[in-house]
Amino acid sequence: MIIIGELINSTRKKIKEAIKNQDTETIKEIARAQAEAGADYVDVNAGAFVHDEIKYLLWLVEIVQPEIDKPLSLDSPNPKAMEEALKIHEKERPLLNSITAEKERYAKIAPLIKEYKARTIALCMGDGGMPETADERLKIADKLINDLSRDGVPLDDVFLDPLIKPVSVSGEYGLQALDTISGIASWDTGVHITCGLSNVSYGLPKRYLLNQAFVVMAMAQGLDSAIIDPLDKYIMSLIKASEVLLNKDPYGGNYLKAHRSGDLA
Amino acid sequence: MIIIGELINSTRKKIKEAIKNQDTETIKEIARAQAEAGADYVDVNAGAFVHDEIKYLLWLVEIVQPEIDKPLSLDSPNPKAMEEALKIHEKERPLLNSITAEKERYAKIAPLIKEYKARTIALCMGDGGMPETADERLKIADKLINDLSRDGVPLDDVFLDPLIKPVSVSGEYGLQALDTISGIASWDTGVHITCGLSNVSYGLPKRYLLNQAFVVMAMAQGLDSAIIDPLDKYIMSLIKASEVLLNKDPYGGNYLKAHRSGDLA
Repeated sequence: MIIIGELINSTRKKIKEAIKNQDTETIKEIARAQAEAGADYVDVNAGAFVHDEIKYLLWLVEIVQPEIDKPLSLDSPNPKAMEEALKIHEKERPLLNSITAEKERYAKIAPLIKEYKARTIALCMGDGGMPETADERLKIADKLINDLSRDGVPLDDVFLDPLIKPVSVSGEYGLQALDTISGIASWDTGVHITCGLSNVSYGLPKRYLLNQAFVVMAMAQGLDSAIIDPLDKYIMSLIKASEVLLNKDPYGGNYLKAHRSGDLA
Repeated sequence: MIIIGELINSTRKKIKEAIKNQDTETIKEIARAQAEAGADYVDVNAGAFVHDEIKYLLWLVEIVQPEIDKPLSLDSPNPKAMEEALKIHEKERPLLNSITAEKERYAKIAPLIKEYKARTIALCMGDGGMPETADERLKIADKLINDLSRDGVPLDDVFLDPLIKPVSVSGEYGLQALDTISGIASWDTGVHITCGLSNVSYGLPKRYLLNQAFVVMAMAQGLDSAIIDPLDKYIMSLIKASEVLLNKDPYGGNYLKAHRSGDLA
């Protein structure tokens, strides 16, 4: 599993405060903790600051980058913010979070992916807004795969995100996301499949139970990446257990290593 | 999910001692606790006592039965023991654990199912011993469905068990069980699918993580019953969360009720 650490997000109160106060230490510590807990990418998002997004995003990149030996996930819907962040990203190739199939957004972000040889999350969303059914998502996924391939992006650099909606809103939303994931996986294109997990449990209590169960189910359908809190030891442990069950961790080598290091919940 | 509480099993040291000492209170307490925790069936097994199995199985049925308002799962490979236990089972229809596709065993147990209108677990095992691949399991499952139907057993009374083997022995065993479950579910015959879970994690540390992840994945493939420890609050909570995600718990009604009762981990 390719883990994208989600914690440095300005929509979280603690992070918003830290950014506003230019509290370098808090941000650095959360970055380090996520990398140590197994994040392959550390997401940075300053989107809550509408007018100062670029300034704060660059500040995040500057202070997080030297602290960890993992690349960043540059999280913004704003192509201008992304480009400025790309210019100062010095580690191995970053992940862009995210491109979509929306015409204007695609046209602005696809060239950045090529120019900076970045990897990218690609949301299953087109100009029609949030898709409703699995079929709609699969159509958009297919278009994204075709368009990105045509534009010279290797599919190993693309992380499709089915866009999951809360099961508290409709009982069908969990199944639709799972069907989208298994559909994309069945094409066997080499594309990665990721998911911003926590949406699924919005509006229900004990959200971690729903998030944990969903990531495990989704892995069995072909999910090979997730945008999560890597400091949640229990979800990380269930992910490691799932890799053993799905024969992605031969002889349970990683699982046993995590056990010996005391990393299993 | 139809939960079969697995704790009163003579292969467990505590239970073996309690049976040997005719320690009525210990057995009764474990029976009550399982029923209260949500077991739909309480399994009773005295198989560790080779020569006294029948005597002890009947003792278990006699003392457990009045304690709970749930039927028992009569757990024995011995048709004679099963028949004696059936004779004294007074609650609504019990579950037989189990029939197989082995010729001799099938021939002796199928008539008991009919005579006592019992429900039954049917293991995917034939005269060729433990099956190796998902295809072998599906062939046996198909035969069991056909034979039991022909013999007048309603498929709603049949709980197919794919027979899971430890992933520590082969990394393929988890996938084989999952493929068997999704294969059986795809036939849409109305048969139930259950699983003795704990085998999957044999030989690995922190077995509860593997058991929890496996039951969640299996539910997404069509598992609708499990033979587990219902006193494990965490696995029961993940099962309830999975039912919400798979739209088997409309509006999360049961999940919210469990939350309000403090039953979620």
